[in-house]
Amino acid sequence: MARATAAEATTTSSERILAAATSAFAELGFRGTTTRDIAARAGMSPTAMYVHHRSKEELLYAISLVGHQRLLAAIQEASAQGVTPTQRLGSVALTFGAWHAERNVQARVVNYELLALTPEHYGEVAQLRHGIDTVFRSIVAAGVATGEFDVDDVSMACVSLASLGVDISRWFRSDGEWSTEQVAAHYRDNALRIVGARGQAGSAARE
Amino acid sequence: MARATAAEATTTSSERILAAATSAFAELGFRGTTTRDIAARAGMSPTAMYVHHRSKEELLYAISLVGHQRLLAAIQEASAQGVTPTQRLGSVALTFGAWHAERNVQARVVNYELLALTPEHYGEVAQLRHGIDTVFRSIVAAGVATGEFDVDDVSMACVSLASLGVDISRWFRSDGEWSTEQVAAHYRDNALRIVGARGQAGSAARE
Repeated sequence: MARATAAEATTTSSERILAAATSAFAELGFRGTTTRDIAARAGMSPTAMYVHHRSKEELLYAISLVGHQRLLAAIQEASAQGVTPTQRLGSVALTFGAWHAERNVQARVVNYELLALTPEHYGEVAQLRHGIDTVFRSIVAAGVATGEFDVDDVSMACVSLASLGVDISRWFRSDGEWSTEQVAAHYRDNALRIVGARGQAGSAARE
Repeated sequence: MARATAAEATTTSSERILAAATSAFAELGFRGTTTRDIAARAGMSPTAMYVHHRSKEELLYAISLVGHQRLLAAIQEASAQGVTPTQRLGSVALTFGAWHAERNVQARVVNYELLALTPEHYGEVAQLRHGIDTVFRSIVAAGVATGEFDVDDVSMACVSLASLGVDISRWFRSDGEWSTEQVAAHYRDNALRIVGARGQAGSAARE
């Protein structure tokens, strides 16, 4: 019983530090953040913090790794929910757009602080980003093959799809004019228009 | 003659400092950059630097102000080059996309470090950003009015157009796979697709 409580306390401290590091990195940038900033936001001493994480870069790595793993799993699951390329892209875009709106603070760290990772850690995260790109790429290529999509350059189209989703995390604010759902649905419609999904270019794409 | 040379030297130093600050802010973030970093990149002493700029924030303000002024002027000129909303959006998008690719280092500072400005400086820059938004908004609204565009929500469409352009500055590298011209043309085609420009959804949009 005492052990379970200690384990719980450890988890909570670790999660508190990760949440504190995420908010500090998003607001001040990785290089503009000190370990002291993170400890203060987590409400603990720098010494107590070092029990859980060895360095600022280890924290960024943990945030980047978990963020990318969860995003990849979510869009793989979304992709499996559709049959046709149009359905699959619609489902993936809805998930990708919602993720970047809802988790905009985490997404800013995950997307804009990549180059502060060590080369080894960057390599691991780059593999996950490649996995995310592969989900988009396989759907767009399938849509071109079935004639559902009208795309000249699959790579360029996929960069645009990722790009439009990523930038949501820069401008979206949860207390703003639009809900996560509205932004995600709009991004989904734009994604279908970008790939020239047949019958999706007009109001047919909207629910 | 001596005075002209002195004036030239002053201009050069000031430009060198601005270029150094731009590269430092883009690479290290505003908060991760010290005035010492900027002076070192400009090849001068911090004391010599203070002759030209009073603070790090003054440098960011100068970069942001000039960057936004030039971008606004460029897209206003581009907008005037077309007659129909489709032509105007095509021309503006080509300019907006090329600007974010070609000047990607400057554009990263201009778009991602806004919140480090003082409230007064932020207010001035926000007015310029509003002017940029107005260019897109007037074209999209005109295209909806003439029936050339198919857009449910003009504000949301304009956010997406700006968003897809801004994000080019995050991922574009001048030594990468694609040229500035290719990226700008692709962005232009996507912009026309996003607004549902009639007859532009397919390969007709491509040159």
